[in-house]
Amino acid sequence: MKWKIEENGFDTEKATGLGNKFLIGNGYMGIRGTLEEFKKDQFPAVNLSGIYDQVGSGWREPLNAPNGLYTRVLVSGEEYALPEQECLSHKMLLDYRHGIFSRETGFMTKKGRILLEAERFASMEEKHLICLKVKITASFDGSLEILTGIDGDVWDINGPHYDKVETGTEEGVIHALGITHENRDEVIVCEGLETFFEAEEKMESTGRKIIRHLRFQVKAGEEYIFHKYISVYTSKDLESFREEGKALVKQAGKDGYEKQSEKHCGRWEKLWKVSEVLIEGDDEAMEALNYSLYHLHCIAPRHSKSLSIAARGLSGQTYKGAVFWDTEMFMLDFFLFTEPEVAKTLLKYRIDTLSGARKKAKDYGFDGAFYPWESQEGGFDACSDYNVTDVFTGRPMRTYFKDKQIHISAAVVYGIMRYSEFTGKDDLLREGGAEVIIECAKFYYSLLVKQVNKDRYELWDVIGPDEYHERVNNNAYTNRMAKFTFDSAIKLLEDYPVQDGTGSKELLDNFKNAAGHLYIPQPHESTGVIEQFDGYEQMEEATVSEVKSRLLNEKEYWGGAYGVASHTKVIKQADVVTMVNLFSREYDRDILYKNWSYYEPRTEHGSSLSACMYSMLACKCGMADKAYPFFIKSAKADLEEGGKQWAGLIYIGGTHPAASGGAYMTAVEGFGGIHIEDGILKAEPKLPKGWSRLSFKLYYLGDLYQVTVTEEEASVEKLQAVDWMD
Amino acid sequence: MKWKIEENGFDTEKATGLGNKFLIGNGYMGIRGTLEEFKKDQFPAVNLSGIYDQVGSGWREPLNAPNGLYTRVLVSGEEYALPEQECLSHKMLLDYRHGIFSRETGFMTKKGRILLEAERFASMEEKHLICLKVKITASFDGSLEILTGIDGDVWDINGPHYDKVETGTEEGVIHALGITHENRDEVIVCEGLETFFEAEEKMESTGRKIIRHLRFQVKAGEEYIFHKYISVYTSKDLESFREEGKALVKQAGKDGYEKQSEKHCGRWEKLWKVSEVLIEGDDEAMEALNYSLYHLHCIAPRHSKSLSIAARGLSGQTYKGAVFWDTEMFMLDFFLFTEPEVAKTLLKYRIDTLSGARKKAKDYGFDGAFYPWESQEGGFDACSDYNVTDVFTGRPMRTYFKDKQIHISAAVVYGIMRYSEFTGKDDLLREGGAEVIIECAKFYYSLLVKQVNKDRYELWDVIGPDEYHERVNNNAYTNRMAKFTFDSAIKLLEDYPVQDGTGSKELLDNFKNAAGHLYIPQPHESTGVIEQFDGYEQMEEATVSEVKSRLLNEKEYWGGAYGVASHTKVIKQADVVTMVNLFSREYDRDILYKNWSYYEPRTEHGSSLSACMYSMLACKCGMADKAYPFFIKSAKADLEEGGKQWAGLIYIGGTHPAASGGAYMTAVEGFGGIHIEDGILKAEPKLPKGWSRLSFKLYYLGDLYQVTVTEEEASVEKLQAVDWMD
Repeated sequence: MKWKIEENGFDTEKATGLGNKFLIGNGYMGIRGTLEEFKKDQFPAVNLSGIYDQVGSGWREPLNAPNGLYTRVLVSGEEYALPEQECLSHKMLLDYRHGIFSRETGFMTKKGRILLEAERFASMEEKHLICLKVKITASFDGSLEILTGIDGDVWDINGPHYDKVETGTEEGVIHALGITHENRDEVIVCEGLETFFEAEEKMESTGRKIIRHLRFQVKAGEEYIFHKYISVYTSKDLESFREEGKALVKQAGKDGYEKQSEKHCGRWEKLWKVSEVLIEGDDEAMEALNYSLYHLHCIAPRHSKSLSIAARGLSGQTYKGAVFWDTEMFMLDFFLFTEPEVAKTLLKYRIDTLSGARKKAKDYGFDGAFYPWESQEGGFDACSDYNVTDVFTGRPMRTYFKDKQIHISAAVVYGIMRYSEFTGKDDLLREGGAEVIIECAKFYYSLLVKQVNKDRYELWDVIGPDEYHERVNNNAYTNRMAKFTFDSAIKLLEDYPVQDGTGSKELLDNFKNAAGHLYIPQPHESTGVIEQFDGYEQMEEATVSEVKSRLLNEKEYWGGAYGVASHTKVIKQADVVTMVNLFSREYDRDILYKNWSYYEPRTEHGSSLSACMYSMLACKCGMADKAYPFFIKSAKADLEEGGKQWAGLIYIGGTHPAASGGAYMTAVEGFGGIHIEDGILKAEPKLPKGWSRLSFKLYYLGDLYQVTVTEEEASVEKLQAVDWMD
Repeated sequence: MKWKIEENGFDTEKATGLGNKFLIGNGYMGIRGTLEEFKKDQFPAVNLSGIYDQVGSGWREPLNAPNGLYTRVLVSGEEYALPEQECLSHKMLLDYRHGIFSRETGFMTKKGRILLEAERFASMEEKHLICLKVKITASFDGSLEILTGIDGDVWDINGPHYDKVETGTEEGVIHALGITHENRDEVIVCEGLETFFEAEEKMESTGRKIIRHLRFQVKAGEEYIFHKYISVYTSKDLESFREEGKALVKQAGKDGYEKQSEKHCGRWEKLWKVSEVLIEGDDEAMEALNYSLYHLHCIAPRHSKSLSIAARGLSGQTYKGAVFWDTEMFMLDFFLFTEPEVAKTLLKYRIDTLSGARKKAKDYGFDGAFYPWESQEGGFDACSDYNVTDVFTGRPMRTYFKDKQIHISAAVVYGIMRYSEFTGKDDLLREGGAEVIIECAKFYYSLLVKQVNKDRYELWDVIGPDEYHERVNNNAYTNRMAKFTFDSAIKLLEDYPVQDGTGSKELLDNFKNAAGHLYIPQPHESTGVIEQFDGYEQMEEATVSEVKSRLLNEKEYWGGAYGVASHTKVIKQADVVTMVNLFSREYDRDILYKNWSYYEPRTEHGSSLSACMYSMLACKCGMADKAYPFFIKSAKADLEEGGKQWAGLIYIGGTHPAASGGAYMTAVEGFGGIHIEDGILKAEPKLPKGWSRLSFKLYYLGDLYQVTVTEEEASVEKLQAVDWMD
């Protein structure tokens, strides 16, 4: 394992995408892998978790903090900065074992060459702290100027979010404080500078920037180093957030860069001690997979007891920084298996946003809890009724993600139940999880319809995971997940009986009735295929490439009422396959296989959530080799620069933590065959060609297990705390 | 009453529209008011009732017969014909008391002036016969040539429908026989010529035409007259259709033009004797109204015992020549009141197409009878799933007229019940009408859904009369009509009890249960407004002109998933207003008024069916003056040339018999206040300003009544047969 990725040379076109690939973060914030000298047009960002703002009718989105990394070098009054100036050489490096980003850029100045080196990390130890080390070397003797400070003129997609940015200096610590438009939240960034050379310092404060000008003399070949300690706090963190911000910078300065780095790296090592996955025989897969896990570590909200992860992690404002079903259905297992307390934090977020989900249900005339499709703080649904733009007319198109994608509530239930199953603990249930489950069951109960002349209950007018077919009846995945919700609620009500008079007897009867009558589409008698929704079989049979060839504009939406895929069998992403993967034990392997092979050629894989469901199910069908390319696709979702960065004029790039989580699930549950059988954690050898050994650790019922899988066998061994803990 | 409309001068642009305005017909065929010399590019048509053809994937549409009127005049080898040549003068005239079209056109030839006069009628006495009289006068002495014969190269929208056209001559009678593509049906047109001058005759048969060339010498100022007797038969009429065609032409020739004309006019006089509506004080309204009734007479299928009327009558192939709800809901009353046997014929068509309706229901997975949205012979639904073209992409748009506009079946029930109510006879019920009603009730029963946690039954995912809002739940009109259907079926099952074992006891229970639980949207407590469908109130409030101003292309569809009206409160046509008009006795006048005044400003009136519902309801609200402009709009639907003739490159013009029927209903039921109270026919004076007296006759329970309404009073007087019959 190299634990490193590198990028050589500079290409403006690629810079935005590399911002995601070279991201660092600590869950409190994510720092895009952009350069210190970048201004907002180059999309630098210190993206914050869990704090949002809306301006006018623009989309509500998370905040980017003022950029305390901002640094530029001047020689003879001229700025040497990318992308404005050509460089002699440029290299970026990410140490993803420790979340350390570094760059090294050579410029030819009028006086000679300079080399700018920088290294940064968002401290895993101290979540409000960023440390930056800058080293400059020149090939000449002469004077140099450095501009470094805080740039409050941040990149925003639907901003500006700061109505104003106040700057100031106090005892050598500078700060920029942004005040948000919607809620008057405050974000303060403080910066302390530590130089290791003599320099004349002047402070400049213009507009939204506060910048130090350092003038100093250099000698050819000598290194000139300075450290920056940058703190980031918001008014939502604690009351004394301003004082804390300044204090942290001072304290960090006292400790020094190396000590901070040491503590930071120590934390990372501890994380890898449990979470690293070893694959013998396939370095490429091992590196891609651990790189994926790196991204999950970067965005895990360890600083909070109740916070979730956005669909694009902390890589920017795309997807409104909102929490989707991605968290519960794709990311949860990684944390549940390696750091259950983070899994709890993620689910606590859902418990704590129950009121938002209740309000949404009520607004639509339903009972219980209808979780937001795009959840922000408090369970506010950031999803718009018009989420796509018609490329032909420029008009917003009415979409139904928000109001019809009802499977989201079941995903929350699934997450909570899975937590209970793998931890063996009922803490989450007692802390509100049970109530969430009951409320979600009430929600589905209020959605059930029954044709008067039939006995079964149905769910109509929904959107399943395949968003290209909207407003369908009896989406198999949705119905099955609703049944799971009823079953879970029944279990709870039976396991924790409450006195009557609370209405829970009636609830129990209702849910039993619902679970007993809810229609679950079954495998077709002869083909074994489960119909994705009522009438899917009547849709036009067309290949994905055929459908693609019908596009009149490459940016047009494939779905909606009239999209190229809408009336064909072509689907966006795993839908029935997701269902049979989750409930694989209810079907014969033959049925799993038939559904996999029926739906795979009909799937566009237009979502990064799709591949891993195909790879996991392929493993369960005994086709590890067919699983492999889907696994690699998931594992490399952020490593390769093929992903969509733009939709029309809108930047939609970012990291894909759900794909990362999906790659992990495929490795552990797919190739490693991890599952629970009669309460016992088991593994099964399902390795793809070339893998001689797969090994990883995971938690089950509070104990850590070492799993080792070879071609022939799989072992699951409980570890004693002394064996592995520091 | 002038009973005449005239058009002076020739304008190519207007010619197509005038084809509708000057239409003549006798129910078997309609002949567009186009000129004898017109070739297919000018849209002449002898449009046939009840016979259809489809070519390739084009729309299935009714046949136009070979054009036996085809006639052109030549002087010195040059054709004098519109629109190719300029004319000196041109006049068209329609005697709509007798269905006689005439024209008079002067041309300047190289030799001097000629005047071409022609007169035609489609015999009301002999439904297969067309008579044409042509008179030519010249201002010079010299030779003239006439081309006259049959042009089998007919205008088709989605043709050509004749795979081949055979022509021939036999004993002076020429014929053209077209063989259709789809079913190999045959249409034969025979023509006999009677000239009153010496001429040299030569026959020419080229392509799909068979033409006589008549050369003769003219003297200045003298009249040269010839008659043509043209018969039209199809292989669906009778086995010996060819022989009959020839025989008819010969017989007509023997009788002569004048005698045919006399018999024809006599029939028309007889029709007017019952159906004429007299309005004292408003000639304009009286003429427009009787002109509307003329159009209804022209298309009444008196030659059949089981045939209905297309939405554009017999004016061409637009709207696929299909039968819509227009017949039962808008045209039926006129026939029911003035010629009940025609009403029976119209409804018999529905009874005889029950198998098609059953098949449609079954194909969609429903029980009973789902009548076609666009019904052709046998109850075949000509409606396509893609009925509109997206003007921006040129792609067909998925529309839901066919599968979701379920109110059509209830319209059929409504028609049958209304027939029984006004005739007092159960003949139609006994001849299959009862079965239709039961089947329609079974259909709705199979559509009922119930939310599991509610008691009421609902109808989801439908389109109401306002087609701009598709896939809605609980459209008030649709639900109320479904209830009407259940109530009708219950009445039948109770009135004609059958032995048990037939399952009718169970049906009765089901229908009673359905009628008792079906949700009918009620007037809002404070506003009194009935919500058009679930969620209508949440739609954007925008004016019709505001919505119109959002069009990016004047031809774009206002409805569908993303139309300019789709997510606003702007509706295409009367919907709730239609419902409260039909069931006005169930609401206080105040509620009627509140719904009228709420929905009127929100209605585009994009359908010619809309205005009359507003005028009728306005009368019931005591606002005859507000009703008046809507009444005039309906009555003049075909008289004024404002109607849409084109949708993009597709000709959609034609007559508007539903508007004609609506104008009639407004006069009789609105202004005249005709209604039944405790089994007694009653009228009420609700005349608009300026009308001093309104009088008409109508049938009720087999008796003819004279109704006379003045400002103050209304009288209904039973007529003795001797008083009015010949």
